[in-house]
Amino acid sequence: MDVLSSFFTPASIAVVGAADDPSKLRGKLLKLAKDSAYPGVVHAVHPRGGTIQGQAAYTSLSEIPGGAELVLVATPGATVPGVVREAVAAGAKAAVILSSGVDMADLTDAIGDSGLRYMGPNTEGYFDLAGIASTFAAVVEEALSQNRAAPRPGRKVSIVSQSGGLGFCLFGRGLSENLDFQSVITTGNEGDLESLDFVDHLLDQGESGVIVMFIEGLKNPARFASVAAKAADKGVPIVVMKVGRSEAGQRAAVSHTAHLTGADTAYDAVFDRYGVIRVFDMEEMLAAAAALARFPQGRVARAAVVSTSGGAGAWAADLLGAASIDVPVLSSQLQASLQEFIPEFGSPANPVDVTAQAVEAGGRPLVKVLERLQHSDEIDAIVVNMGLHKPGRVKALADLLGPLYAGATKPILFHSHILPHPENMAALAELGGQGFASFRGCASALSALNKHAAFLADWKARAPVLAPAAAAVCNDIAPGILNELQTRLLLSAYSIPVPANALVSDRAAALAQARGMGFPVVLKIQSPDIAHKTEAGGVALNIGESDVEAAFDRIMASAIAYAPDARIEGVLVQKMMPKGHEIVIGITRDPDFGPLVMLGSGGIYLEVLKDVVFAPPPISTEAAKTLIGRLKTAPILEGVRGEAAGDLDALAALISRVADLARAEDNIDQLDLNPVFVYPAGEGVVAVDALAVAGQPVGGGH
Amino acid sequence: MDVLSSFFTPASIAVVGAADDPSKLRGKLLKLAKDSAYPGVVHAVHPRGGTIQGQAAYTSLSEIPGGAELVLVATPGATVPGVVREAVAAGAKAAVILSSGVDMADLTDAIGDSGLRYMGPNTEGYFDLAGIASTFAAVVEEALSQNRAAPRPGRKVSIVSQSGGLGFCLFGRGLSENLDFQSVITTGNEGDLESLDFVDHLLDQGESGVIVMFIEGLKNPARFASVAAKAADKGVPIVVMKVGRSEAGQRAAVSHTAHLTGADTAYDAVFDRYGVIRVFDMEEMLAAAAALARFPQGRVARAAVVSTSGGAGAWAADLLGAASIDVPVLSSQLQASLQEFIPEFGSPANPVDVTAQAVEAGGRPLVKVLERLQHSDEIDAIVVNMGLHKPGRVKALADLLGPLYAGATKPILFHSHILPHPENMAALAELGGQGFASFRGCASALSALNKHAAFLADWKARAPVLAPAAAAVCNDIAPGILNELQTRLLLSAYSIPVPANALVSDRAAALAQARGMGFPVVLKIQSPDIAHKTEAGGVALNIGESDVEAAFDRIMASAIAYAPDARIEGVLVQKMMPKGHEIVIGITRDPDFGPLVMLGSGGIYLEVLKDVVFAPPPISTEAAKTLIGRLKTAPILEGVRGEAAGDLDALAALISRVADLARAEDNIDQLDLNPVFVYPAGEGVVAVDALAVAGQPVGGGH
Repeated sequence: MDVLSSFFTPASIAVVGAADDPSKLRGKLLKLAKDSAYPGVVHAVHPRGGTIQGQAAYTSLSEIPGGAELVLVATPGATVPGVVREAVAAGAKAAVILSSGVDMADLTDAIGDSGLRYMGPNTEGYFDLAGIASTFAAVVEEALSQNRAAPRPGRKVSIVSQSGGLGFCLFGRGLSENLDFQSVITTGNEGDLESLDFVDHLLDQGESGVIVMFIEGLKNPARFASVAAKAADKGVPIVVMKVGRSEAGQRAAVSHTAHLTGADTAYDAVFDRYGVIRVFDMEEMLAAAAALARFPQGRVARAAVVSTSGGAGAWAADLLGAASIDVPVLSSQLQASLQEFIPEFGSPANPVDVTAQAVEAGGRPLVKVLERLQHSDEIDAIVVNMGLHKPGRVKALADLLGPLYAGATKPILFHSHILPHPENMAALAELGGQGFASFRGCASALSALNKHAAFLADWKARAPVLAPAAAAVCNDIAPGILNELQTRLLLSAYSIPVPANALVSDRAAALAQARGMGFPVVLKIQSPDIAHKTEAGGVALNIGESDVEAAFDRIMASAIAYAPDARIEGVLVQKMMPKGHEIVIGITRDPDFGPLVMLGSGGIYLEVLKDVVFAPPPISTEAAKTLIGRLKTAPILEGVRGEAAGDLDALAALISRVADLARAEDNIDQLDLNPVFVYPAGEGVVAVDALAVAGQPVGGGH
Repeated sequence: MDVLSSFFTPASIAVVGAADDPSKLRGKLLKLAKDSAYPGVVHAVHPRGGTIQGQAAYTSLSEIPGGAELVLVATPGATVPGVVREAVAAGAKAAVILSSGVDMADLTDAIGDSGLRYMGPNTEGYFDLAGIASTFAAVVEEALSQNRAAPRPGRKVSIVSQSGGLGFCLFGRGLSENLDFQSVITTGNEGDLESLDFVDHLLDQGESGVIVMFIEGLKNPARFASVAAKAADKGVPIVVMKVGRSEAGQRAAVSHTAHLTGADTAYDAVFDRYGVIRVFDMEEMLAAAAALARFPQGRVARAAVVSTSGGAGAWAADLLGAASIDVPVLSSQLQASLQEFIPEFGSPANPVDVTAQAVEAGGRPLVKVLERLQHSDEIDAIVVNMGLHKPGRVKALADLLGPLYAGATKPILFHSHILPHPENMAALAELGGQGFASFRGCASALSALNKHAAFLADWKARAPVLAPAAAAVCNDIAPGILNELQTRLLLSAYSIPVPANALVSDRAAALAQARGMGFPVVLKIQSPDIAHKTEAGGVALNIGESDVEAAFDRIMASAIAYAPDARIEGVLVQKMMPKGHEIVIGITRDPDFGPLVMLGSGGIYLEVLKDVVFAPPPISTEAAKTLIGRLKTAPILEGVRGEAAGDLDALAALISRVADLARAEDNIDQLDLNPVFVYPAGEGVVAVDALAVAGQPVGGGH
């Protein structure tokens, strides 16, 4: 059974510390719970008893006949553990602790092994629009007092936020932008239940078509992947605002909550894997949520812009372009078919300028243009720019727009450059549309639709079951830098191509091996007692056939002179590889999310251009190719200006195998393949140098 | 005398085509002109005469005793030339032609040599808040009906827009965000007067502290520089939204107006030179304008974030960080001093979390924190985040905030994550502050302040008079690719370093010259009759001392065999340069703005990373260094990871000289120095290869 059912469908609720005055926090808590859609009984509890908001109050939880399954606690922090003890004794299953300043050890003690689950402390509670309000957020009061007659078309949005203030503020802004909500859940300090519990619950319930999260730092980041995967399986987009991108933001988030904000790059890599849409501003967030809720129609790569003003059309096109939405020239057939409804001084190209005349005449020509665009396969979405400041403008077109939206196969977004009148925006939502007051909002909306559809297609196409991780070969390696032999064994276990090499113990063997490899070669002394080979004179570079034997003797002599007692295992003969395009591949372990595979440009460009991308394992070869494509220098690998393309198949396979290694070898903390040479297509890749560092196996703690 | 005075301070105005009903466009035109602050007489003209809006109408302009200096024309397009003829006959000096569909040849003919100047056609006119309204824009009606008692602190904003719709819409949005305006000017089709005329006029008038432009494409782009330079001299920031960044946006702008949108890169280069702040969204535009108008205090590199919510503080820090505004940790002394007013569960670090308690208690602790931050030199600006949804919140703090703003040495911006109540935002403006409803708005505001202050400091520090352009050396060169000798003369005239070289006519001289240069060298046949040297066997690369004479003989023989009748001028001996860091420097000519100097990364990175920047000449060596710093790969030149820094002085000097060349040699259409090798500091730079193309001298063409 869902552990959270006691929060959402309890048999009864008690508000502890209930007060009479509904303008005060504790009075409001009771009033909102009673005014909410929750069909059961809401008990008031106060030590003084008496009548509170017209009902008899209990002096303690133990007095309530049959008890209360859910207890809302807003008493002073110091009293909370006592209240929770009472709740446990009275058989409560769940508590919402809105109080702050709670002694956590005492609270844990009060709960003991009762199995009671709680939200908070320091939460602003939640609001299930079809159920319970367990909050004193003022915006909920407003929302409850509004009564919208009929449900509007589209999916419902839920908000899950660690910050109560921001969660309910987002809800308020969303209401004023005509979003339809399922619930707003704020989790506060997450002493027990955390954001992901609620997202998981919402996914199980299946009523929320879009989930919006505000994250300061996840309590259990490693769990994020499974919840996000469930959302992806169900086709429910998650839109995330996560603070901590900047150093100062990270500092603030850490000081504010108990959460670590985690390495932002790791979050990005995981968000990317599961198609989570990351946003950075409230406007972007609401625009993405609105679009995903209203327009489930699919991929949006190309848009038509329909405008009553040429300047505004150009502006819209610029911002869509910046969001990677193409605004293509329409075919001459389509232009001719639109021209019928466009005055001569307008333009049927794209942006389509229908001119102000099209709207002044009641808007019928405009809607005709939209109808024809709707049936065209040349574009995937329509952005309509017109002034929506005069109330009644949308209602006057409702008989035309209604059927258009009802049969819509493409998102149709309205934008008003003049500050729009709320009535028009609400009327659009009633019809199943959405209005925006900024071009950036439109661009964010289409971009979110585009990304989500592209992700879902990819997600569904992916092999359903990933192979289990390979058996680890490095379990027994002691912490520290792996030696050459260990490193070679590790790389070979994952078929990571390295230059041809051989360990030899005499000059003749050295020459024979080198001849087999081709020249030039490198010779390196191998000894567990010689850490600094170059200093010991134990390395000879760029050796041709005529010099191999002499070089063998030279480095052997140098090494013995340098460390007479060293145990010499032999000399490693290694082929010197011709230079290819340089890439770096690595593994890092994020303290929150675990292993991440890193792919970057080689040499100095990695650092200067910050040309590096991350992904969590496993990585299919297809995913590896997508990852390669995200490098700033990808065009070089893909072959630019007539230069040969690199061997992308071999590189993708290598990345995929490094990901397998990262997943299986859980005590390899770090791996750097630097450089990796990528040769022209068909000629492979080679990891020229490798450094691996073993740590404690996972579970050993951090 | 200012050519525009007839538009702004005419002796009298006539509205031709005036109508009685003020809800119709022509009625509104008359009514707004009469209701405006213009102190003179506004005549109504209509063929039918009679009484219009309570005043006797003239049947034609010629009837008006003393005539009308300024004529507002809103009659049907076909009648406009006739009306203008009448206006000319009646001695009018200026006309605002709001009509569209005007025959331009006929209009020009009507004006003849009368000297009458006009705006439009197809303009929505202008609104001088302290003078004339010559428009029917509905928002002006609203603005005139509002009466604000006292002027608010800060500079005034003017809008100059080619699009009437967008110009007045921006004005309306700005009013609702409490901006204070001087005038809104929309120029329409710019048959005569253009945007820049009005910007120039506003600068001369000196009443506008910030000028906001909406540009589809400038009529005379080349003039932009002088107007922008005047603005810079006067310290008046120009904020520009220019469409045409995307291909579709450019298409729309071109089809909409007569303007060419011009190469967007050229606009960017010119904007950059004159400190013009380019924005891409209305929110960004209004935020920048508001900040520049309210907060003239200077550079903003570091900000304090003061928040009543930890999550919101972190969010603000992230967005400021993304706008390159630092949010530094405060010193322990300053933190200790702030701690006095912050509850224990808050934080005095930066972001400063004063907690909701600081505001609930009336906000005094919050203001104390602001006072102390205001006096600190650790930060340059303060962003305060608090909920401003409850009306009265700012007014309740006015006795504290008033003195704070009155003595402000730093911008103090308020942000409300909950939708702010307009009363609070207006109250902030009355005090000299500014409220924002989005973090992105705050970030745009501070970023604009920072950019403008940095630009002004640089502008003032710059040498006041630039040397006149050098005398051209290429005036007589025929159009086409310059030959090697011409190219060398051109480069040498501007001291552009090239590899050592000498033209020789015998093998002994070749060896002697090569010895002087050092080896290896390159030998190239020189003949006006051999275009393809390599094909003719006329090039020998990488020649050492022992092979010079033989190589001379070889290429001479090959050339003669290839083209027996060729006139051989000799053999060019040129030093082969050791490889340095590769850069490309070039000159292009923009059809609108003229010559631009191009600087890019060398080789494949130029294209793949689009690592290229442009600037118009002249370019001082300081400006050249700034330009270098804008390359994505600049850190490589500046020395990264212990690698040697490049010779930036020599590179900057080279860029500056190429700019001189671009300015003086006005028939050099294109120059490519590719590659330029940049050697370590002190070791110079060298243009290894050069291609120059001559066109028609400027004035001969387009």
